[in-house]
Amino acid sequence: MIIILRPEADPGPEELRQLEAVASRFPDLTLRLHRVQGAFQTLHEVYVFGPTRQVPTEAFAELPFVQRVVRVSSRYRVIGRHGGQAPEVGFEHRGLRFSQDSFHVFAGLCAVDTRQHVELTMEALRRAGLRTARMGAYKPRTSPYDFQGHGRACLPYVFELAGKYGIQVIAMEVTHESHLEEIATALDEAGHPTGVMVQIGTRNAQNFELLKHVGRQQAFPVLFKRGMGITLEESLNACEYVATNGNPRIVFCLRGVKSDKGDPHRNLVDFAHVPVVNRLTRLPVCVDPSHSVGRRDRAPDGISDIWHAAAQGVIAGANMLLVDLHPRPEAALCDGPQALTLGELEPFLEDMRICREAYLRRLAALRRGRVEAA
Amino acid sequence: MIIILRPEADPGPEELRQLEAVASRFPDLTLRLHRVQGAFQTLHEVYVFGPTRQVPTEAFAELPFVQRVVRVSSRYRVIGRHGGQAPEVGFEHRGLRFSQDSFHVFAGLCAVDTRQHVELTMEALRRAGLRTARMGAYKPRTSPYDFQGHGRACLPYVFELAGKYGIQVIAMEVTHESHLEEIATALDEAGHPTGVMVQIGTRNAQNFELLKHVGRQQAFPVLFKRGMGITLEESLNACEYVATNGNPRIVFCLRGVKSDKGDPHRNLVDFAHVPVVNRLTRLPVCVDPSHSVGRRDRAPDGISDIWHAAAQGVIAGANMLLVDLHPRPEAALCDGPQALTLGELEPFLEDMRICREAYLRRLAALRRGRVEAA
Amino acid sequence: MIIILRPEADPGPEELRQLEAVASRFPDLTLRLHRVQGAFQTLHEVYVFGPTRQVPTEAFAELPFVQRVVRVSSRYRVIGRHGGQAPEVGFEHRGLRFSQDSFHVFAGLCAVDTRQHVELTMEALRRAGLRTARMGAYKPRTSPYDFQGHGRACLPYVFELAGKYGIQVIAMEVTHESHLEEIATALDEAGHPTGVMVQIGTRNAQNFELLKHVGRQQAFPVLFKRGMGITLEESLNACEYVATNGNPRIVFCLRGVKSDKGDPHRNLVDFAHVPVVNRLTRLPVCVDPSHSVGRRDRAPDGISDIWHAAAQGVIAGANMLLVDLHPRPEAALCDGPQALTLGELEPFLEDMRICREAYLRRLAALRRGRVEAA
Amino acid sequence: MIIILRPEADPGPEELRQLEAVASRFPDLTLRLHRVQGAFQTLHEVYVFGPTRQVPTEAFAELPFVQRVVRVSSRYRVIGRHGGQAPEVGFEHRGLRFSQDSFHVFAGLCAVDTRQHVELTMEALRRAGLRTARMGAYKPRTSPYDFQGHGRACLPYVFELAGKYGIQVIAMEVTHESHLEEIATALDEAGHPTGVMVQIGTRNAQNFELLKHVGRQQAFPVLFKRGMGITLEESLNACEYVATNGNPRIVFCLRGVKSDKGDPHRNLVDFAHVPVVNRLTRLPVCVDPSHSVGRRDRAPDGISDIWHAAAQGVIAGANMLLVDLHPRPEAALCDGPQALTLGELEPFLEDMRICREAYLRRLAALRRGRVEAA
Repeated sequence: MIIILRPEADPGPEELRQLEAVASRFPDLTLRLHRVQGAFQTLHEVYVFGPTRQVPTEAFAELPFVQRVVRVSSRYRVIGRHGGQAPEVGFEHRGLRFSQDSFHVFAGLCAVDTRQHVELTMEALRRAGLRTARMGAYKPRTSPYDFQGHGRACLPYVFELAGKYGIQVIAMEVTHESHLEEIATALDEAGHPTGVMVQIGTRNAQNFELLKHVGRQQAFPVLFKRGMGITLEESLNACEYVATNGNPRIVFCLRGVKSDKGDPHRNLVDFAHVPVVNRLTRLPVCVDPSHSVGRRDRAPDGISDIWHAAAQGVIAGANMLLVDLHPRPEAALCDGPQALTLGELEPFLEDMRICREAYLRRLAALRRGRVEAA
Repeated sequence: MIIILRPEADPGPEELRQLEAVASRFPDLTLRLHRVQGAFQTLHEVYVFGPTRQVPTEAFAELPFVQRVVRVSSRYRVIGRHGGQAPEVGFEHRGLRFSQDSFHVFAGLCAVDTRQHVELTMEALRRAGLRTARMGAYKPRTSPYDFQGHGRACLPYVFELAGKYGIQVIAMEVTHESHLEEIATALDEAGHPTGVMVQIGTRNAQNFELLKHVGRQQAFPVLFKRGMGITLEESLNACEYVATNGNPRIVFCLRGVKSDKGDPHRNLVDFAHVPVVNRLTRLPVCVDPSHSVGRRDRAPDGISDIWHAAAQGVIAGANMLLVDLHPRPEAALCDGPQALTLGELEPFLEDMRICREAYLRRLAALRRGRVEAA
Repeated sequence: MIIILRPEADPGPEELRQLEAVASRFPDLTLRLHRVQGAFQTLHEVYVFGPTRQVPTEAFAELPFVQRVVRVSSRYRVIGRHGGQAPEVGFEHRGLRFSQDSFHVFAGLCAVDTRQHVELTMEALRRAGLRTARMGAYKPRTSPYDFQGHGRACLPYVFELAGKYGIQVIAMEVTHESHLEEIATALDEAGHPTGVMVQIGTRNAQNFELLKHVGRQQAFPVLFKRGMGITLEESLNACEYVATNGNPRIVFCLRGVKSDKGDPHRNLVDFAHVPVVNRLTRLPVCVDPSHSVGRRDRAPDGISDIWHAAAQGVIAGANMLLVDLHPRPEAALCDGPQALTLGELEPFLEDMRICREAYLRRLAALRRGRVEAA
Repeated sequence: MIIILRPEADPGPEELRQLEAVASRFPDLTLRLHRVQGAFQTLHEVYVFGPTRQVPTEAFAELPFVQRVVRVSSRYRVIGRHGGQAPEVGFEHRGLRFSQDSFHVFAGLCAVDTRQHVELTMEALRRAGLRTARMGAYKPRTSPYDFQGHGRACLPYVFELAGKYGIQVIAMEVTHESHLEEIATALDEAGHPTGVMVQIGTRNAQNFELLKHVGRQQAFPVLFKRGMGITLEESLNACEYVATNGNPRIVFCLRGVKSDKGDPHRNLVDFAHVPVVNRLTRLPVCVDPSHSVGRRDRAPDGISDIWHAAAQGVIAGANMLLVDLHPRPEAALCDGPQALTLGELEPFLEDMRICREAYLRRLAALRRGRVEAA
């Protein structure tokens, strides 16, 4: 059960007391307040845990500061839309808004290798007008004998250069709870020139202990990558571990699924799930065309498969793109073959702008049609 | 080995004799002439079968009417692009051009049920400006106890109504070689008011005997649907059965693949393979969002998953859409839940126009970028 | 609805009239008599088609020659066990009994190549005491450029040699209805020295027109191979096409499913489905370890993966083994790497005998345990 | 590169000095000694890391205490068989031997719920003559709202009761490194009445940080469960993380893979991979029929699918069975439907004995056959 408070309500001790008083009339209920700092206003929701089946929604709905009470299924309790009843919310980080209406491109190094490559990449991003980047410091690799990332050693220069080039948010994978502290410490030491969105990789999509850890902190929003070998429902359930532990600032990322039917692509691109995730959850949806496609081949029309996959995500309303970019893909220590070159960045962004505009035109046409039909 | 003749060449007995003379200098070669009637010109290619590995391409290339000789791998010998060496060709049917540059929407009844529904559908198509339709007469169904289609009984009124409403080409599945004759007979009896593109369904994607039959006739082009449980390579190999038996007028249709990772969609949408099929083969590429998605749900943006999937195909350059449309989806005898209503047709086409225009803008931007870079 | 007649009943015109009389009291029912010639007795079942939901079972059950009336779901109407209510039946062919209690090994050439190889193989089978063989004349191949089988040209010597070496039943794939006639003709011309079990390959598992054809004839029992890219339920539904068209003499064959998770085997071996098919259907169950595994590797215990997979089928109660055997696997035109050599045949059969005995000991132990527990 | 020392060699400072001296002749080599305490003798292997390609094997092989030098591929460097060159090794724990020749049954509670159920289960195990058990304290669950296990709270009584009933080794899943310490502490406090084999669950199969942790400790052997959504190769690579971090005492467990083609089973049973893992690695192989099958259905022969799957593992040489057992399956908090009842335990073990004996008879027949053939 979710109690959605009126937008203007700013629940203090008195309101919480009243909510607790109602809850105490039923056995074994516990309440948890959830505050969402949006761009224009702050929303408050109260989650009711316990045997809520026998609790009438009216019990809470009659309180004057309550807007609506939503009875939720046990699936996706916090992240869910619950058949459209629960509103989409979104969040802000470092002045940027992430929601089902926003659109951001996070481009950069899958695995940080040298300071010089970081600087060249950051510089290219600024030139292209981007304020968001991807930078991999901790790399989970299929074989223990592959390059595992520079880890915390590279954080100081990554954050310093982000600050120098005006990058506000960096998507960065973590594979252990200690990485959260290392990142927080390095940001502190650097004077917070940038922010981090911590990424849970596909191999850790059901590492529930790690999910609980990123759910229990508030410093970083979370970019959750779908598990490549499990169903969408299982991935959404896993994502709920983050939210129910206290951190609902999550972006859900599609990145393809493992299947022999995706060949010659590295994975079977699953971006037809963009509208599904939008419908089932309140979360912004990201797509990762680089890891989905994994190859640099071009169609006869001159456009590479990676660009086409990205376009497919955007035309269906994706809110974020995560894309590999490298000054020298051929020298990258990880996933070089799928990275864009710096020279491709601006044409790629132009391509994505065309697709995003087309998506917005689709929306406008649909709404116009509805008005005319009325 | 493929010998591509000069565009202006019209090979007569003398040219063929010269080709045979060269071939006879090597053991066990056989030649087959293939004539492609395009929109503006007629192309001629000669396929060389046998142990061609030790045949130097110069042997044929020095003939004056030969433009180029392409050494092909054994994979996709006829339908293949062979690393870009073999040109895309396309074909014409009933005045409509099908190629990797064209774009057509085939909408209509997954399974013909009543004459009235056929007429209402054809009327709606004409109103929307379409000259192409889908009409299912022969339905392969998973269970023998499901409706199997009206078969040849419905052909007379389907063709008559197509003529009445100006439909030039109907996509129609066949599941047995005898259906080809039934369709040909019915078209004859109706006075050829329309044309048919015969469709090989996903369950017959490796029914090689049927593929050989549709390959041995020239009356109908072929819409080949990818096998839902096999790899793309296996589907392309199967498609080659059609081409190598003599009929290269094929459209390759993506329609999703079976996977538990596609849920809640009926299949895992595979439209990221549009550029792959464009690159590997010379064939126009169709996408079928109705069977891929299989559900009518809408995203919170108001657009249904089927429209989004269709948009994803089009933004990546799909040349054809196959979409279920029904006057009363709730009463359809087959796959009703995935059909568009007649009222949705024009907004859907408007949506697809936006996407097709965006695709063309993407191409233009890319070419402009190249010129500037030069 | 299935009406099971008393074992001693031999329904003549009078009984059929009585059944029809009952049926005529309800709208739109049709009856079909199905006679099963077993080893010791003949069973009779009457299938009731139409809207049977509102027909009380008592209407038929009160007839004196009726033993039991089973209300069946629409799934697996003819082949189904219907929750254990419908008895397992089995059938006889050329003096051999096929049922969920029998056990046969069909070994031989995946693709007939030379008369000499056929003779060497048949001779080895007789020496090993086998009266059943596999011999492929019609080969569906993934690529049109691979060897497609000798077709009817090899039938005369295959049948003659079968007769010479006492082979009673040959499993032989058909890919087109005309092959049934070719086989029938060749058997006639040879004087019926042997019998044929026609095999539907995995690529034709949903070629419903072919399934209807093999269902409409009574000359040959049918070996139905599971579709490699579809669910078990879909394969069973497809198999029902054979049965409902009149031929319930079917063996259901597991042969692995396509999946990248089966590597390094050619397919993911699915023999854990042996008890499932036994439970859901009345059909004997075959396993094909050769096509499932597809490689000749040995475990460190000296036993090859193919033998191990076969053992897994047998220990779980498989009723039939289909296994590739070739006098010179390295020279085979199709699937050589997975064939047993002639020298391996007897050790392999000894291995399978150990497994079959172990299966029977498992059954005996279970029954003993139950008696003791009582 | 692996240097295998002579069985009688007990490398002291002098031998290590000699090995280091050889290594120092080549750039960037590091050595790591690995001691395997087997049942009858202690084996020693030295792993050589670094650019070994240009190091001749003779350099080490000429040392008098070296038996053999194996050049290994980068895949499965430590766990691999390397084409049969590296010997199978195995290990001992609490007086029990685990190797590719041993056979153990670990039965018990998927999730510990009450002390009483633990005691009833342990008692049944002792009565059946077993000294090994499974007991789940930490449960990773797909949804955060499902029962997550009692964690360390239940360890004291689990260990105490294990001691009381003579259980020597308990398989117990860990999902976080802290669980290792909790288990070690609880064992210390209980006075080490039993031992633990820590289990890495399928959802953590690519949680490389956790794998490194269990690899860096020597207190507990590791039961590694195959990742359900990845290839066998990826799972073996993940397992190598444990070994290369220092702990080669690993059992590899097959537990089915996710696929819609496994229905109606919970997973697609993958036990045909038993001989593959035996061949590719030195590790004992376990099968988990309970999680693979996930249902209690019986075949018409009276044997449940879970027993049949277990039999399939054993007949192919599995070295360990992990099976759910519960005093009251209907009351279990996790996976009740797949648990054996206590009354089923002894018949099940009898069934497995029949299968194990059959496996040993298969081996004996094969060896006899070879002698005769010689």
